[in-house]
Order: sequence, then C-alpha cells, then structure tokens
Amino acid sequence: MAMMVAAARRLAGRSGAAPALSSVVLRSATLQTMAGAFREERDTFGPIMVPADRLWGAQTQRSLQNFDIGGEREQMPEPIIRAFGVLKKCAAKVNMEYGLDPTVGKAIMQAAQEVAEGKLNDHFPLVIWQTGSGTQSNMNANEVIANRAAEILGHKRGEKFVHPNDHVNRSQSSNDTFPTVMHIAAAVEINSRFIPSLKQLHSSLHTKSLEFKDIVKIGRTHTQDATPLTLGQEFSGYTTQVKYGIERIIGTLPRMYQLAQGGTAVGTGLNTKKGFDVKIASTVAEETNLSFVTAENKFEALAAHDAFVETSGALNTISASLMKIANDIRLLGSGPRCGLGELILPENEPGSSIMPGKVNPTQCEALTMVCAQVMGNHVAITVGGSNGHFELNVYKPLIASGLLRSLRLLGDASVSFEKNCVRGIKANHQRISKLLHESLMLVTSLNPKIGYDKAAAVAKKAHKEGTTLKDAALNLNVLTAEEFDELVVPEKMLGPSD
Amino acid sequence: MAMMVAAARRLAGRSGAAPALSSVVLRSATLQTMAGAFREERDTFGPIMVPADRLWGAQTQRSLQNFDIGGEREQMPEPIIRAFGVLKKCAAKVNMEYGLDPTVGKAIMQAAQEVAEGKLNDHFPLVIWQTGSGTQSNMNANEVIANRAAEILGHKRGEKFVHPNDHVNRSQSSNDTFPTVMHIAAAVEINSRFIPSLKQLHSSLHTKSLEFKDIVKIGRTHTQDATPLTLGQEFSGYTTQVKYGIERIIGTLPRMYQLAQGGTAVGTGLNTKKGFDVKIASTVAEETNLSFVTAENKFEALAAHDAFVETSGALNTISASLMKIANDIRLLGSGPRCGLGELILPENEPGSSIMPGKVNPTQCEALTMVCAQVMGNHVAITVGGSNGHFELNVYKPLIASGLLRSLRLLGDASVSFEKNCVRGIKANHQRISKLLHESLMLVTSLNPKIGYDKAAAVAKKAHKEGTTLKDAALNLNVLTAEEFDELVVPEKMLGPSD
Amino acid sequence: MAMMVAAARRLAGRSGAAPALSSVVLRSATLQTMAGAFREERDTFGPIMVPADRLWGAQTQRSLQNFDIGGEREQMPEPIIRAFGVLKKCAAKVNMEYGLDPTVGKAIMQAAQEVAEGKLNDHFPLVIWQTGSGTQSNMNANEVIANRAAEILGHKRGEKFVHPNDHVNRSQSSNDTFPTVMHIAAAVEINSRFIPSLKQLHSSLHTKSLEFKDIVKIGRTHTQDATPLTLGQEFSGYTTQVKYGIERIIGTLPRMYQLAQGGTAVGTGLNTKKGFDVKIASTVAEETNLSFVTAENKFEALAAHDAFVETSGALNTISASLMKIANDIRLLGSGPRCGLGELILPENEPGSSIMPGKVNPTQCEALTMVCAQVMGNHVAITVGGSNGHFELNVYKPLIASGLLRSLRLLGDASVSFEKNCVRGIKANHQRISKLLHESLMLVTSLNPKIGYDKAAAVAKKAHKEGTTLKDAALNLNVLTAEEFDELVVPEKMLGPSD
Amino acid sequence: MAMMVAAARRLAGRSGAAPALSSVVLRSATLQTMAGAFREERDTFGPIMVPADRLWGAQTQRSLQNFDIGGEREQMPEPIIRAFGVLKKCAAKVNMEYGLDPTVGKAIMQAAQEVAEGKLNDHFPLVIWQTGSGTQSNMNANEVIANRAAEILGHKRGEKFVHPNDHVNRSQSSNDTFPTVMHIAAAVEINSRFIPSLKQLHSSLHTKSLEFKDIVKIGRTHTQDATPLTLGQEFSGYTTQVKYGIERIIGTLPRMYQLAQGGTAVGTGLNTKKGFDVKIASTVAEETNLSFVTAENKFEALAAHDAFVETSGALNTISASLMKIANDIRLLGSGPRCGLGELILPENEPGSSIMPGKVNPTQCEALTMVCAQVMGNHVAITVGGSNGHFELNVYKPLIASGLLRSLRLLGDASVSFEKNCVRGIKANHQRISKLLHESLMLVTSLNPKIGYDKAAAVAKKAHKEGTTLKDAALNLNVLTAEEFDELVVPEKMLGPSD
Repeated sequence: MAMMVAAARRLAGRSGAAPALSSVVLRSATLQTMAGAFREERDTFGPIMVPADRLWGAQTQRSLQNFDIGGEREQMPEPIIRAFGVLKKCAAKVNMEYGLDPTVGKAIMQAAQEVAEGKLNDHFPLVIWQTGSGTQSNMNANEVIANRAAEILGHKRGEKFVHPNDHVNRSQSSNDTFPTVMHIAAAVEINSRFIPSLKQLHSSLHTKSLEFKDIVKIGRTHTQDATPLTLGQEFSGYTTQVKYGIERIIGTLPRMYQLAQGGTAVGTGLNTKKGFDVKIASTVAEETNLSFVTAENKFEALAAHDAFVETSGALNTISASLMKIANDIRLLGSGPRCGLGELILPENEPGSSIMPGKVNPTQCEALTMVCAQVMGNHVAITVGGSNGHFELNVYKPLIASGLLRSLRLLGDASVSFEKNCVRGIKANHQRISKLLHESLMLVTSLNPKIGYDKAAAVAKKAHKEGTTLKDAALNLNVLTAEEFDELVVPEKMLGPSD
Repeated sequence: MAMMVAAARRLAGRSGAAPALSSVVLRSATLQTMAGAFREERDTFGPIMVPADRLWGAQTQRSLQNFDIGGEREQMPEPIIRAFGVLKKCAAKVNMEYGLDPTVGKAIMQAAQEVAEGKLNDHFPLVIWQTGSGTQSNMNANEVIANRAAEILGHKRGEKFVHPNDHVNRSQSSNDTFPTVMHIAAAVEINSRFIPSLKQLHSSLHTKSLEFKDIVKIGRTHTQDATPLTLGQEFSGYTTQVKYGIERIIGTLPRMYQLAQGGTAVGTGLNTKKGFDVKIASTVAEETNLSFVTAENKFEALAAHDAFVETSGALNTISASLMKIANDIRLLGSGPRCGLGELILPENEPGSSIMPGKVNPTQCEALTMVCAQVMGNHVAITVGGSNGHFELNVYKPLIASGLLRSLRLLGDASVSFEKNCVRGIKANHQRISKLLHESLMLVTSLNPKIGYDKAAAVAKKAHKEGTTLKDAALNLNVLTAEEFDELVVPEKMLGPSD
Repeated sequence: MAMMVAAARRLAGRSGAAPALSSVVLRSATLQTMAGAFREERDTFGPIMVPADRLWGAQTQRSLQNFDIGGEREQMPEPIIRAFGVLKKCAAKVNMEYGLDPTVGKAIMQAAQEVAEGKLNDHFPLVIWQTGSGTQSNMNANEVIANRAAEILGHKRGEKFVHPNDHVNRSQSSNDTFPTVMHIAAAVEINSRFIPSLKQLHSSLHTKSLEFKDIVKIGRTHTQDATPLTLGQEFSGYTTQVKYGIERIIGTLPRMYQLAQGGTAVGTGLNTKKGFDVKIASTVAEETNLSFVTAENKFEALAAHDAFVETSGALNTISASLMKIANDIRLLGSGPRCGLGELILPENEPGSSIMPGKVNPTQCEALTMVCAQVMGNHVAITVGGSNGHFELNVYKPLIASGLLRSLRLLGDASVSFEKNCVRGIKANHQRISKLLHESLMLVTSLNPKIGYDKAAAVAKKAHKEGTTLKDAALNLNVLTAEEFDELVVPEKMLGPSD
Repeated sequence: MAMMVAAARRLAGRSGAAPALSSVVLRSATLQTMAGAFREERDTFGPIMVPADRLWGAQTQRSLQNFDIGGEREQMPEPIIRAFGVLKKCAAKVNMEYGLDPTVGKAIMQAAQEVAEGKLNDHFPLVIWQTGSGTQSNMNANEVIANRAAEILGHKRGEKFVHPNDHVNRSQSSNDTFPTVMHIAAAVEINSRFIPSLKQLHSSLHTKSLEFKDIVKIGRTHTQDATPLTLGQEFSGYTTQVKYGIERIIGTLPRMYQLAQGGTAVGTGLNTKKGFDVKIASTVAEETNLSFVTAENKFEALAAHDAFVETSGALNTISASLMKIANDIRLLGSGPRCGLGELILPENEPGSSIMPGKVNPTQCEALTMVCAQVMGNHVAITVGGSNGHFELNVYKPLIASGLLRSLRLLGDASVSFEKNCVRGIKANHQRISKLLHESLMLVTSLNPKIGYDKAAAVAKKAHKEGTTLKDAALNLNVLTAEEFDELVVPEKMLGPSD
C-alpha cells in the first residue's frame, strides 16, 4: 500500500498542483487494478507508474491522468480499438517487406490480432475526450501491442524489447494512423452490422406491404380524412424509404474506403517508403474483405473528415425516414378505443395492469429517441468536421465516436423495431373497414351519377347529422341502396383510371 | 448611356477580371436607379460611380459589387437599419457634448431620425453576407446619413460637407457600432413585437382553458387511451408552456441590454472619451424607453455574441413548446370522421370542395414550419457565435439576421395561429363524450366495488367483444346499470382524492 | 376610396374578429396595388375582393390575409414560381393528349411559359409560411395562369373562362404538384447554378495548387509547427475537398430527378389517367433538359422528402469543407506583421485608412457565415423532413425554401470567394521562407548524421536561446555550416523516400 | 447448465421467433451473472427467469430482452439511478404519513438509500433506449428496492413481501416519477458538480486576467493586426464569458426545481391524495438541500420538457463561449516558431520527441470536442422536447441522458482545461513585445504630431521595406528617435482619453 501511495504521489508530481489522487485511484479501482502493484514505464517525459497488470505504457498513463473527463462510459468505442488491431497487424506485415525484423514483426502481428479480436479491450482505458488527433489512443495501441508482443517473445513488459514507436508505429504517425482506423472502424460497422440491420427492417416492411396489399383503408393528408389507399400501399412507402436509405449509405462508401495511411505527420508521407501507402491499403482490404484503397489526396485525408460528415448525413436522412415510419405506426396503432386503431402492435411488456388492449408503442419510442440522437450527433460531427486547421483536423475522436455511436444505435434500434414491432404488426380489419365506410370522403364517387351539387348535399347532411353517406343519400332520395352500393366502392379508388 | 457604360467599366476596373457588370446593373435596375445617372463618390480606395438618386457612398457601392450573394431577399433586415438610425442619432447628440459642431450634429440627428423611421430603407442595399463585422453596413449608415445631413444643410451629395467617418461615425468603430445596433434591434423587436405576440397567444390559450374547464375527455399517454382529464386541464398545460416561454425570453434581456458602444476597435475604447460609453447607453435607453446600459466588459461584447446565442436558445425552447401545442391541436382536430375529432378548428380557406368538415389545420402547419426554421437558425447562430477569434467575432450579420428572422417569424406565426386558429377552436362535445364513455380506461373505477379481478374481466370482455364496459358489466352480472352509472363517473377522476 | 374600405371590410369580414386591416392594406400598398381598384373573385368559400391589377384569385387572396407572417422577404422563392410555370406548361401539353381543349391548352401553355420566365413574379405574393402542402401556392399558380390564359383568349380576369382547377390543375392535386415543383426547382438550381459555381471554385483552387507547387513551407498540426510541405500540396487538399463536394451533390441527383406528379392526393393516382405520370415526367425532362423520371413509389414521394434531407446533407458537407478552407486562408493571410502572413489576400475595400497591409479577409467572412447558415438550414430541413404524417408531409414550403436558399447562398458565396479572393491570392515568398528556415522542426534532418541525442541538443539550444538551428549547431560544434546546409533541405522532406 | 438453457429458452419463448439468445447471454455474461443460476419472477405478463444474484424483477428482465440497443455503454446514467433512490426514499417517507405500514416503509427507505448512494448500480442494467416514458427504469427501481427491502426484512427475492407497485411505487406513476427523477438528477448535477467546475475555471481565468494586466500586446480583429490591449484585458473577456455562463445556468434552475410528482398518469393526480405533491417536493428538497417545489402545472410537467430544452440551451451557450476561449488560447499559443506564440501552454505529455517547444494544445482540443458534442446533444434534446404528444412526452430517457452527459462532459472538461492548461499558462513576454513593436498599427500615434499624410507615408515605407516604423520614420526624417519613442507608447492606447 505504501508503494501505491508513493506511486500515486509520483503520478501527481508533474503538475505541481494538488493531485487529483482520488479520481485517479477511483478510476484505477474501477479498472480493477488495485489488487496488484505498479510497474515503472517511461517515455520522453520520464518515468511514470503504471498498473502492473495492464499492458499499457507511459503515454497512456499520462493521458489517463490528464483527461479525467466523463469516466468509463466515455472510453474510446470498441470498433476503434479493434480497427487498431487490424491496422497494426497489417502495418507489421508490410513493414516486414520493408525490413522489419520478422521475429518482431510476427509477434506484433499476433499481438495485434488479439487486439483486433477484442481480447485486450481492458487495456484500452482512454476516453474520447483527449488529444484531438487521437494520438494517445494510437500510443495506447502501440504500447499494448509492444508489451504483448514482447511477452510473446519471452520478454517483460516495460523493457521495450519490442518498441511501441520504432517497431509497432514504424512508418506511421498518429496523424495518419488515427484517421485510417476511423475509416476501417466505420466501414466495418457499416458493412457487417448496419446495412444488414437495415436490410432486415426493409425485408420485414416489404413483407408487410405484401401481406396488407388488399386491405383498403382511409387515406389521411394534413392528418385529415382523404381518399382511400391500401394498407399495403402505405407500407410500400415505408419500404421505399428504407430501400433508399440503404442506397444512401452505400453511396458514401467510396470515400469511406480511402485510407490516410502513408500520409504520416502532414500528408507528405515523410518517413515512409514509396509504395507503403498502397501496400498497407491493400493489406487492410485483404484482411477485412472490404474495398479499401489508399487516399487519393493525403492532405485532405488528414486535415478534413468530410467523409464522416457525409456518412453522418446519410444516417441523418435515414433517421428522418425512420422517425416518420415509427410515428405513423404508433399513431395508426393508437387506441385501443379512442385513437385511430388501425394497427394492432405486438405486446411485449405490460402496458396497463387492468386495461386490455393498451399496448404502448415502446419500440417506436425507442427508435424515435435514437433518431433524435443521431440528428444531434450529426450536428456535433458537422461542427467538428468544419473546424480543422491547416494540416490536421483535431476533432477526430469526437467525429469517430459520434458516427460509430450513431451507426450502432440506429442499427440496433432498427433490428429491435423490426423484431419486436414490425414483424408482429396486425391489421385491425374491422376498425379499418369501419372508418373507411364511415368516411365522408367517398362521396366523390357519387359525382358522375348524381352531380356535384347533390353529392355535396348528401355529404353535408351526413356531416351535420352524423350519419353515414348512405343513410343521407337514401334519406334525400337521390339514390337507392343498390345504386349507392354499386357506386361507392373504395376498391375502385386506388389508382389512375384507364 | 455612354456615361453609364464608362461608369460600369470603372466599377469593374479594380478586379482586373471579367466585370460582373450584368449583375451589378441588374441589381441597380431592381433598385430602380436606371432612370437617373451616376455620380462619383470616393473613399481611400479612390473614386467610384454611385447611382445618382441614392444617398450611399463609395464603400457601400464597393460592397454591392464585391458581395453579389443571394440578391435582394438577403438584404440586411430592416430592424438593423432602423437601429442604426437610433444609434447614430444618439451618437450625434452625445458627440455634441464632446465638441461636435451643433449645426452638423443637429443635421445628423435629423437625418438619423429619418433612418430610424424607415424612411430611407431604399438606401440600404447591402446583403447580410458581407464583412463579418458588419463594417459595410455601418459605413452604409454613415454615408447615407452624411449625405442626407449635408442636403439638409443645403449641400450636395458626395461633397462630404458632413463626413461619414469624422462626423457621423465620430468616436465610433464598426466593431462597437454593429454589435450595439444588433442589441438595440433585438431588444426593440423583443419588447415591441415578440413579447406582445406571445402574450396574445397566452391570453387566448388561457381563455380556452377556462372555457373548456368542465369538458371531461379521455387522456392519452404513449398516444394510447389513459385516464381522463378536462379539456381545460389539457389547455392549461399549453398555457403554462407559453407563460414560461415569456419568462424565458424576458430572462435573457439583462444581457441583451448591454451595449458595446464605447469599446471602439478592440474593446479598449481608444479614440473615445471617458464617459462616452455610459452616456451613449443612457441616451439610447432614453430614445427607446428600454433599459440599455453600457456593457460591463467591452472585450466580451465585441469578441463574443453569447447574448444572442442565449436569446436564440430561448426562442428554440419556445419553438419546442409551440411545436408540441400545434401538433396536439392538429391531431385533436383530425377527422372529421376517421381521426380523433375532439376539436373543431376554424375553417379559413377551402379544404375540400365537396367534403364538409375537412378543415386542414393550416395554421398549425405554418406555425410548426416556423418552429423548425427557428431551430435551424439556432444552430446557425450557435456555430457563428462559437467561432469568434481574438478581439472580434466576425459572424455578426449572420447572427443578427438569424435572430431577427426567428423573432419575426415566431412572433407573427404566434399571432396568426392565435387569431386564425386558437381563438376559434370549439370543442366537439359529442365526440369527446362518446370517446370518453367508450373508453375501457374507466374500468378502474369499478375496483373498489367489485375487486380487481372482476373489473379486469369486465374490461377484457368489452375489449374482446367490442362493447361498452357497461354492456359487459351487465352481461357478466357483476353490477346493475344503476350501480355502474354511480361508480363510473369520469368527473370524479380528475384529481387527487381527499 | 370608399370602395376600397368596403373591400377591406369584406376582406376582414369572415373572421368575425377585429380586422387586421392595417397590415393587409400595408402589404397591398407595398405591392403597389393601391393605385387601382379591386375586383371580385370567388371560390367555394364565397366572394372576396382582389387587387384589380393582379392576376391572382380568391384562394391566393385568402392566404394573403390568413398568413401574415414575415412580410415580403418571406415570399416563396422565385425558383419555385418558375418551376410552377414549367410544370403547368407540361401538364397542359400532356392534358391535351388526354382531351383538354387545345385552345385552352395552348393558352395555358403560353401563360405558364411567362411564369416560367419570371415575367409574372409580381403576381405570386404568398409567403413560405402557409399551408404545409403548398396548396395555396399551387392555387396561386393555377389562378394566375388561368386568368392570364383567359386574357390571352380575350376574356376577362375572374370570369373563369379558363378554370384554375378544372383546366390548369387538371389531373393534378396540390399534394403531387408541390413536391414535383420542389424537385424541378432544386434540380434546375443544382445543375444550372450550383454545380457551375463549385466548379469555378474548384478550378481556381486547382490553378493555385499548381502555381504554388514549388513553394516549400512549414506544415502545421495542432496549430503547431510541423514538418514541411508545399503550398501547392496544401491547396491540393482544398481542391480535393471541393472536387468531392461536387461528387457528393451529383450523387444526390438520381433521387432528386424522381417526380411525384401523378400521385394526386394520396399517392394512388386517383383522378388521373394511366400513363399520365410517366408522360408528365418525360415532358418535364424534355422541357428542362434534365433526367427527370416518374417516382418509383408515389406514396414515398408525397409523404416524405428524404431526397431533400439527403441533398441538404450534401450541402452541409460542402459547408464543412468550405468553412475549413476559408478558415485556413484567413489564418494563413493573417497579419500583416503579427500573424502568420504566408498568404497575401486581394484587397477589395479599405481595411484601415492608415495602415497599409491590413487586408481584412472579408470574402472568407462572408463565406463562413453562409456555411453556418447552411448548417442551420440543414437542421430545419431535417426537422421538417422527419415530421410527415401518414400520406403527406406538410413541411414542404419550409423544406423547399430552405434547400433553395442554401443552394443559392452557397453557390453565390463560392463564386464571390473565388472571384474576389482565391483568384487573387499571392504567396508571401519571403515570409514563408523565413518561417520555414526559422523552424526547429527541420532538426529531424540531422538525425542520420549526428544522431538523435545531439540533434535534440541542437534543437533545445536553439529553442532556449531563440537562435536558428544552424547557429546552434555551429555553436555546439557538431557540424560545419556546409554540412548543415547539405543536410537541412526542406525540399527533401516533401514525400516518402525511395 | 440445463436449467440455464431452459431459462433461456423460456426467455426467448414469447417472441415466437428466433431467440436473441446469444446477445442476452452475452449481456448477462458481461454483467457477471453467469456464475449463478436464475430465479423466477413474475408480472402481469407471467413468469420470467431472472439472474439469481440480481435484485431486479420481471419487468426489468423483459426490457433487457426487448431493447437490445447499444450495449452496456448505453445504460441509464448513474445520476438517474441515484435520483430514483432519493425519490423512492422520500416517497416512502411521505407514504407512511398517508398510511403505509411503517415496517415496510422504513425498509424501503433503507433500500432506497442504498440506491441513492450508488451501492446497487449493478442492479440497473437497462439502457436509455427503452420505453420513452422511462417506465421500465422506474420499474427497475421499484423491483430492486422491493427485493432489497424484503431482504432487509428477512424475506426472499421474488416473493413480493414488499411489492414493487403497491408499496414502492405507491401513489406514483412512471409518468410523474421519471420526470421527477430527471429534474432531481439534473439539479443535483448542476449544483454539486457543474457550477463548481465553471467557478473553478472562472476563478482561474480571473487570476490570469490580473496576472497579465500589465502586459501590452497587439490586438487582432478579422485575424488582422489591430490596436493594442493588455493580455489581462483579453483574458477579462474570457472571464466575463464564463461569469455570464454561470448566471445563465443558474437562471434555468427555477424551472428545474419544479417536480412533476403528484401528477400521476396524466397530470390530474388521480390515485394520489391531496397534498401528496407538495409534501413529496418538500421532502426531496430537504433530502437534497435544494429548492425543489411541486410543479405549478402538472400537465405541462408530464407532457413537455421545456425546462430541459432550456437548460440544454444554457449549456449550448456556454459551449459557444468555451469554444471561443479554447480556440483563442490554442492560436495564441501556436508555434513555437511559426505561429503567434504569445502564450506558453503547459506541457503535459510528449508533443514531439525531438522538437522542444512543440506543445500540442491537447486540453483545448478535448474541450472544443466536448463543446461540439454539447451542441449536438442540444439538437437531440430539442428534437425530443418538441415531439411530445397529448398528456406525455415519450422522449424522456433521451432528453435526460443527453442533458446529463452534456453536464458531465462540460463540467469535467472545464476542470481538466483549468487544471492542466489555464492554470499553467505563461505569457511569452519577449514574443508579445516583439510583435507589438513590429506592428504597423502603432502608426496612428504619430498623427497628432506629423499629420495623417506623413504618418501614412511612414507606414507605407515600413510595410514595403519590411522595416520597423521607427526605422522608416527616421529614414524619412519626419521625427527624431526620441520624438518617436515619446509618441509611440502602446501603454497609452489602452483606453478612452480624458
């Protein structure tokens, strides 16, 4: 314990001010490192104590102390960490072609693979709110992989047998590494998780659209009764929205597949070898089975993140679509008695303990909340994306974490909405039919037979007296019941005429 | 004509590139100046031709050519121009105390008064999208007032008998003048137009809340049927929202009343006299009958526009309130047959030529569109407000015009909504009563008498068979009709029990 | 005058409340209609007085009175009005194929052509903030074209020889007409104005990038000195951003080219003929020379405006790009003595009357203000786009006007920035060279020769004593002057090594 | 293991679809519950298996399965959970006054106290993205407290000796409980954490402003050289911004202190007793030492969250302020050689391994990233706040979590920025003085002595030849060195004249 206090004192020593001891200890505690002891790591700033059971090194530890912002919830998202694993593995592979000792190179590849698989997540404690270039997360990856690789080769942590900078970060700079990792993480998430989620939703909506193709219902414009359509037609609109959403996100991929790696510090590629950029992009492409290429212009790739603003824009559009769809569904399912009541939503949890039929549209609620958050993240990403200066945009962790959060939430919520709501939606045939036939909107069908003036009189009478059109028409003696039934056929109002 | 061409050539001469002749001529044309000829004005840049029938001078003319962005619709908003009139009048008054020739000073006051009254609006052609300090609009005001004052004193335009800089702009800089004008314009609009508009809406909603106080209706949560409340209670929620909205905007005024004038170029007040800042603020206060004071810190007042971001935030909150209210009203008024139909909205224009009762909630639509725009402007203002550098924020015209547009639209739309919608809303008693009594939610009233289990059975039966609770209860023989009517009294469900 | 008062009284009669007489008269006045008298027009609501010299009819007049929001500045944008001209012309053409009397049809085409050319702009007084379906602007177009067509055929206004609904609006509904017009207006603006503007900027930046290709300068990351690059490389990043921006906006066109026309009231196409939708799209395509097609799903096309949210997202991305570029340029041009001073920006207006070299980056300021507004409009459009209900989104005028304003401002500001700034940018060779050679960053070049430790010692000495690296190196006797000059060659630091 | 599989099967049974087994198991695993077994809990939906070592019940378990959105990172924020502890404790206390069995009541109070202290955090697994009323988190609290209270009284989990609804949730509804908890959590965070953080930053900036009060430096407007001010004056602007920020957040508290509790399901207070609302508010006030009161209008308090939109607006304004301040500081600290270099920022981590003086402004970067996120969250909260329907806003968890995240991040980042940056900022006296005296801006001081024309000539010569003003003046023979030094005294340019 004395050693720990000493370590902590040392930790706090540099700032010359009151040590933020408690919070450091607290965070260490939550990371479950109190059990063990500390070891010394060093960087150009000097020595610093690091939890002995953690693989990270000096720079990670410094960041932990200097950026006590938001706590564990705000740690760098896992897809970024995994993408670091992918990139560092590929970099070692390419670096071996350029002279990196194969023993070291292979150990790095093995360690990096563990990172890529999420096995070392606990060794990435840094929060989003750090250096805006993500430098410290890059160093975190370098340090963890170096220490792990050294262990693989039978060496101790902190000895730097495998060097975080000279070996793991070879030919790289944080300034090209972090944006590369951003693109890898986003492209992987989009392809492996987000698009499949949207496709699942699309497929389910399409199925419903077919299932409901013969159910004629009242249309509504301005939230007011309008001419009829089928419930299937209504759902076909939703289906098309999601279909286009998938096209929209796919349309952003060409720029997402461009990797900054090889630009190093300012985009020139100083300290790399010619061809390194192309090789690393193709190695990453092979590793991930995605169409990554080296960025056409490395200056753009470091200094701007327009590709993320663009992709976030696609998510923003998809959110607008899903908010519309979810709103419709909850309103069409409102009731059971005093709402529109055309849809019966699946009941996943108790709505009311006593009142049957009160099914709260909770999946719609979760989804629309997610849509609102995605819209908000989009503004955050836009602000960050617009504020780069000179050769580097330093809002990278904000931008990356914002987009990844939006992707995850929107994908998960789409699946949840599909599985727990859309899939189980049933049409309330009786209610739909009742509303349709009570509607005054059908009066337009009478025009050809009895003329506009009489038709209007029928409608006015029905509206005033609260009766059906048929009652009013019979009452006014303008039609027989048979004639009425022959003329007023909503099924004939569903498309253009020949 | 030859002269005009020559003038135009000269106009275009500086850039050394293809002259933007057509657009300049076009804009001049729309300003109806083609009839006359041009006169020469000069500034430190040299001579330039200006439409003879316009009071502006060289710097205005240059801006007109250099910022051909958006056309006439994008001209600086009128409240800014009027506020320039107010400020320049007050500045002349105070400057006379500090030695300005009274003859000149009084002529400036008279000319500035004309600007304050909107009489010279046609002489302010510049667009919002100009120098970010609003310098050119300040010079526009200086030039117009100088030329007009000179005319009042019997001199010619362009002769600079009254000098735009030395006389009209004396002791001032664009950097303190424009933010002062921003604050004057916003505070005047808030007090004279916006707050009265909100109060009118508040009063009308309050009246409705009293008018509807005895109408018991079904409540809705999650858009699902819930326990009852009165329509008056529902409207009391809206009333409270607007009431707090008024409090919110009033709460921003203390910082809006702080004037930057006296800070001059960087906030130090160089080139003014001690006391000038306090005197000008009190003169403006007297002129406008508003509580303006000199800004506590002039550096903040030039370099940041947090007061505008804050006030825009209040409008953003009010927009969220009004969007909720307008959405409720249009949904409660949906129908006439296939919606909720609890409210009857006034009919202001033809909805459907044949279908009576189809009243589109057009005022709700206009209001909610305005709310969306105010939310958007808020983001624009926030982005502009956050991007000041060093001693000056150079997003001033954006920020000012955005807030003024939001104030105008939100105020006007509130009045339109009040006058053409809220005021005329009627309750559809029959429909409200029908929905209420059909609701299954009232079953909870039976618990004390017949117990939870039997009550649930009644509700389930009614739900399953689509009957009323009463029918189900009688059918199950758990209650007599009299007992049911005695127990199920929505009027007793409107508040906490004793 | 008595007649006018009577008319005004009548105007105000319907609401049964205090007439908003002054504002109606005021607006009429600003529309310069006071000179003449009024004529009576009628719709299903009854008769109403309309200014005699205006072509609009009853429904337009009602909207004018019911939506007194924002004043003239808020009128529907001109591209919408022109697009109405295009659409109504095409509709008449197609309707003649379906039986419309050719005499009437041709007169409509002629009148519509005048609208398309902007000749009748003064007859479109309605503001954006109206019915959310744009119904009243559609009726405005129908009424103006009907009255004008009647005049062409020798009939009087108001007589309805050509009927606004039966003839001009034949086979159409506001609900499909307005979204069609939105798409036409946006696609025309994008193609004819916005893309050419961006291309002009792109071309100019590319030219600069070539012009500056041999100017080696210090790089900056984190706003701190970094390794060198060429000014041409720096500008190539900007060029690439704009190039991708053009690709982004082009990528949105496939969905913008889809026209809703033929969906009529709810998307089913009731009251049109089969094939009408395809024919009208191809006629519009022919008329505009753009690749319009009929929308794949009319329900989506009426109920959602995802295509606008998407396109606005592209503009949002472009704004992020341009904000970055303009910020860089103003900071690189900061000075003349106390800033970075690497660029010399063209001087378009007086900066300081006495201080030479103080060139305010006013074009950067105008452009970045526009970018902020576009970001704000994007949020407004997103909010509007997400809030459609059932068969109709009723935020159409907000969405349309927001996108059109963003397109116009961003296009115009790009051209202004190009013409008045980028084109005239000069490199300050002397300053660039001085900063480069004073930089400590070049010390990295010494590593291979003298090793890391000695190189670091050189840098530390230079930093501490404020000298150049060369002085420090010579002083420490680690290198000769010749050796230093041979090693420290920024020109060799501009790319990867062989 | 067999039992677990059976349990899992049962878990998945309801949906009738492919079980989301893996993710449920995965999440359970991460919650470290795999070790133990499951127990059965029930609600009105029937029985369900729950991890035996967890205190939650059936409804929590259902939500866990139905809302698999975002994973652990997305769990309801801790301040909400703690506030539930506070509220449930107070509710039990008040309920005892209204007849709740004191044995049960005291056990609830004890269990709730543990929740309030964060001791039971691991038993609150639900994510933000659930029912929009937060019902399931309310039930989570009820279930955990009921089970824990039962244990305290010697009973078993799941037996419902203490009932989650009848006892813990007595006189409450999720609809009034969750908004109450939102207000408690936000008000506590604002008072205990956020305001102290801002005050710490304010105090530090104020200290710097005093420390730097005599350092005269060049001013900058439009990023161009301008008249001088002191570094202390510059920092006084920042200080004022933060001071007003504190005022702004305090200004929102009156509405944040209003508690919805007592409104129950729709705002009427049905099922509570008269006076319950007032008593619970005063009990919470006592418990927290904050000025909570019962909401003036419960309908507003359930159906809208304008107070959160408003408070988020205050944070948005503060973000705009802090972004400005952090941007200034990083630009003023840019260099070490090729930037402005007026400030020396503390070095907290290695910037460059070889280049001394390259201190990346990492704290500025973290802070500005946070500001961007707060701006984004503000939009999300606004969208959620505007979309309430009828008696209930169902974006509550989004709104609550967004505001709490903004508060936490902005507070933490302010402290980090203060501690690791502002506190250690030093002025680079030499650089500041050099820039000031090289500036051409000082030429204005010569006007009174040698006249405008000669002064301008001096400036032009200096600018052209790159010399100092003094050199130019001496060279032109317009002044002696002594005269120059007497006239050009920046210290006399710092305020208005007498």
